[in-house]
Amino acid sequence: MRTVALVLEYDGTDLHGFQRQESLPTVAGEVERALEVFCGHRVDVVGAGRTDAGVHATGQVVSFETNAAIATMPKALSGMLRSSNIAVLRAVEREQGFSARRSALSRTYRYRILNRVAPSPLHRRRAFYVRSRLDVDVMRHAAQALLGEHDFAAFCGAEKPASGITKRGVKRTEAQRSGDFIDVLIEADSFLHQMMRIIVGTLVEIGRGKRSPNDMARILASGDRTQAGHTAPAHGLYLEYVSYDPPV
Amino acid sequence: MRTVALVLEYDGTDLHGFQRQESLPTVAGEVERALEVFCGHRVDVVGAGRTDAGVHATGQVVSFETNAAIATMPKALSGMLRSSNIAVLRAVEREQGFSARRSALSRTYRYRILNRVAPSPLHRRRAFYVRSRLDVDVMRHAAQALLGEHDFAAFCGAEKPASGITKRGVKRTEAQRSGDFIDVLIEADSFLHQMMRIIVGTLVEIGRGKRSPNDMARILASGDRTQAGHTAPAHGLYLEYVSYDPPV
Repeated sequence: MRTVALVLEYDGTDLHGFQRQESLPTVAGEVERALEVFCGHRVDVVGAGRTDAGVHATGQVVSFETNAAIATMPKALSGMLRSSNIAVLRAVEREQGFSARRSALSRTYRYRILNRVAPSPLHRRRAFYVRSRLDVDVMRHAAQALLGEHDFAAFCGAEKPASGITKRGVKRTEAQRSGDFIDVLIEADSFLHQMMRIIVGTLVEIGRGKRSPNDMARILASGDRTQAGHTAPAHGLYLEYVSYDPPV
Repeated sequence: MRTVALVLEYDGTDLHGFQRQESLPTVAGEVERALEVFCGHRVDVVGAGRTDAGVHATGQVVSFETNAAIATMPKALSGMLRSSNIAVLRAVEREQGFSARRSALSRTYRYRILNRVAPSPLHRRRAFYVRSRLDVDVMRHAAQALLGEHDFAAFCGAEKPASGITKRGVKRTEAQRSGDFIDVLIEADSFLHQMMRIIVGTLVEIGRGKRSPNDMARILASGDRTQAGHTAPAHGLYLEYVSYDPPV
């Protein structure tokens, strides 16, 4: 059997997250169903990021084993997955033992905020709409407090990691305005449950001037979820890139 | 009564075009229904462009008469029109006699093509997906044949203008690649029914190398719709800007 990695894009609006569920459409469930038809045998996929319901991806990576032909996978699977709003951007063979989850060096998430006076029907399910003007320079500065190795317990949602370890390494933070949009980008070795959305929820409160930019370091040190901001909604979040050596 | 102009954005996916219809949601129908509640009297709106079913807008303009307060219109109407996927970006008072249709100096339409190997679930209802690589330089060159005053009968859909006149003036044409997208932009004094979509359908055939760039002038001169290309689908088209003096 060969180990195969697929790069996926999806619109998470109508998907109930990444993890397979009995009777609801999920990313893993839909992809496994298509792969079973394509490969002619049952397939279990491992994903790089367990995106929640409503979260999108432009660069999710899944891995699995098969002897089926790889070259025709992107076009054939994208056709089969069209009504599930999932596309296969690329399929590559990887070394034995490769795992989309365990072999990942880092994940990069993008969070998209629409920040203008009027809402946007065209971006309604693609960006978090914030009417009050946000100070992106203050947000960028505040996000830098997250760089490096820290205990991110204060930014962890309801699902605690099985290991109990809440230490994570943040390699890159960005916050940029382009027109009416603000994109917050964070690269970390891995992410806790809802970590990106709680960070963005906190950054939005800082950008509105409701909190001081210095709060970021204080919240991080507290290890207390109640000190951080609201969880920003799922529909602004994108799993953008997963890094491997060599890249997939 | 004062004359008011509204600038609208909408996601045309679930709207049955601009023009009011008896029992189907349309841009004019939904906006008039919200305005009747807001203004407390029946309102007839005039639109700058009669967009077809599925066509989007980021800068449609409508005008109407009322004595209701203008300042609160964008926020209140956007709230009322949220489930119709219409937002009011701006509301301004205009001079007596102003008409969004008759006072318009020009309309600018943008047509968005996604041109890459894999389809995109995130842009599925926002861009026309073309898998074969398009030569955008050839498309840009071909579009320039449309500049100036011409009889555009060859690029007119089923609904002929009531006046019978198919002469139109094209002021600007652009075709640009940015990443996986190609945007075709045309500014004209006004557009015939499906003119933009037939032009883009023809440009796509030229960009694929199925037609020569010189075909554009020949098709224009023929005045024959059967000489032009397919009508590109509605979901890639945006009414982007309508020009007035002074601007709305």
